[in-house]
Amino acid sequence: MPRKASKVELTQVSEWDDGKLRRKDDYLAAEEPLEIRIGEHPLSVTMRTPGHDLELAAGFLFTEGLVQRREQVRKLESAIRNGGPSGGNVVQVELTPDAEPDFDKIRRHFFASSSCGICGKASIDSVRSRLLEPPNPEFRVAPELILRLPDVLRSSQAVFERTGGLHAAALFNASGALQVLREDIGRHNAVDKSIGWALREGRLPLADSVLLVSGRGGFEIIQKAIVAGVPVVASVSAPSSLAVQLARELRLTLIGFLRGRRFVIYSGEDRLKNP
Amino acid sequence: MPRKASKVELTQVSEWDDGKLRRKDDYLAAEEPLEIRIGEHPLSVTMRTPGHDLELAAGFLFTEGLVQRREQVRKLESAIRNGGPSGGNVVQVELTPDAEPDFDKIRRHFFASSSCGICGKASIDSVRSRLLEPPNPEFRVAPELILRLPDVLRSSQAVFERTGGLHAAALFNASGALQVLREDIGRHNAVDKSIGWALREGRLPLADSVLLVSGRGGFEIIQKAIVAGVPVVASVSAPSSLAVQLARELRLTLIGFLRGRRFVIYSGEDRLKNP
Repeated sequence: MPRKASKVELTQVSEWDDGKLRRKDDYLAAEEPLEIRIGEHPLSVTMRTPGHDLELAAGFLFTEGLVQRREQVRKLESAIRNGGPSGGNVVQVELTPDAEPDFDKIRRHFFASSSCGICGKASIDSVRSRLLEPPNPEFRVAPELILRLPDVLRSSQAVFERTGGLHAAALFNASGALQVLREDIGRHNAVDKSIGWALREGRLPLADSVLLVSGRGGFEIIQKAIVAGVPVVASVSAPSSLAVQLARELRLTLIGFLRGRRFVIYSGEDRLKNP
Repeated sequence: MPRKASKVELTQVSEWDDGKLRRKDDYLAAEEPLEIRIGEHPLSVTMRTPGHDLELAAGFLFTEGLVQRREQVRKLESAIRNGGPSGGNVVQVELTPDAEPDFDKIRRHFFASSSCGICGKASIDSVRSRLLEPPNPEFRVAPELILRLPDVLRSSQAVFERTGGLHAAALFNASGALQVLREDIGRHNAVDKSIGWALREGRLPLADSVLLVSGRGGFEIIQKAIVAGVPVVASVSAPSSLAVQLARELRLTLIGFLRGRRFVIYSGEDRLKNP
């Protein structure tokens, strides 16, 4: 396997199978820290699966509210900085002066919400304070189209099949065509990579897209979808209570347990054609 | 359902099943922010499933290296503070003067590593800098005992079955008896609750315990296990590359894909009896 395909790592393991032990080669989902820096200021260190780092950084900046438009990102490049918390993996960002953040404020803010599972301003109140708009109320999608999405995801998702360790996020258009698929060991990173792709391609807001995620539809996934203007989020698994609450409040269509010919609609049923 | 059992929330949803749509009641895994405060200083806000909040705070303080001994936690109590990022859910902590942290340093540190999926000082280098010891090298466990653990977990884990949305972490002793089981929407929180339980019970280090987690065995899970002295971590799913690297470096036994009569050993095979 070429070293470049660094989304997975090859390693030797032992398999215990009903009393028999054998050595074999196995693939692991790669996980490495990545530091995002704005100028000389470290913004965040995230554990991510290497690949599409610039999209990840762009998506993070956008979904966390640091930039609102592509033009505000003047430079975005991978860099190597020896030492530091990321072991050298850095995305160096330059913003336009109007987007240059108040680092003291960020520091206070991130300090107050620094733990796992919560991206930045993650309480419902602070999401509210960002005055987000409900996504496209005119968008409609057919249930039969929704049903097909997990198969498209799986057939496009090589790494997950091999390691069982990666989450995926994919954007589909209203006809069910795959727009982008990104994989990462972190669910939120897979979503940030997809949205970062859209930002860099000038496709935001994603007013006619469906976001499909392989794992749970948690609060921060819904938050990121709303920031990007996505009207429909579907997941093969269960959403959390806060995800449902946020989806209902901002009238996003939230679908869970999308398996076989069945799914559960938690919010925004009106976007389904003749359901 | 009594309001007190707030690990789940009851809600009305619509189920689309092969063209038929029906309304039904459904349970959601509860997710709410919790703020941990030391004196007047906010330390972190984490999205968690309510319940065992004091254990969660204790486990977080311990696995993040803020306290090393139970005696350093002078007070730990649930409080309500109106407003703020947590919507009022607070655990108020008082530490002994020798454990009182340098908040400027924490602020700088958390600022530099504030993103999702990474708990505090989470690069391998900073784990190394904490001079952690490899867990108990004498501990031995039989493969047949390992095989039985997922069934014990599942039969004890009521909420997960109902909502499909909660992660579980459980500690077992060397005979396979369940010591503690904790559930949370966040994998790392379920582990922190279990380890926080052990801290408060005076059972640390967990030199003769097996930690079983329902989800992936990621880097931060291994990190927390090592801090608590757990010699064996088993998961029903895949570990990440960095989790395997850390487990090998610190000689922790790491087992993945524990399903049926089969599992994969990524590290520390010597702790398995006659494997």
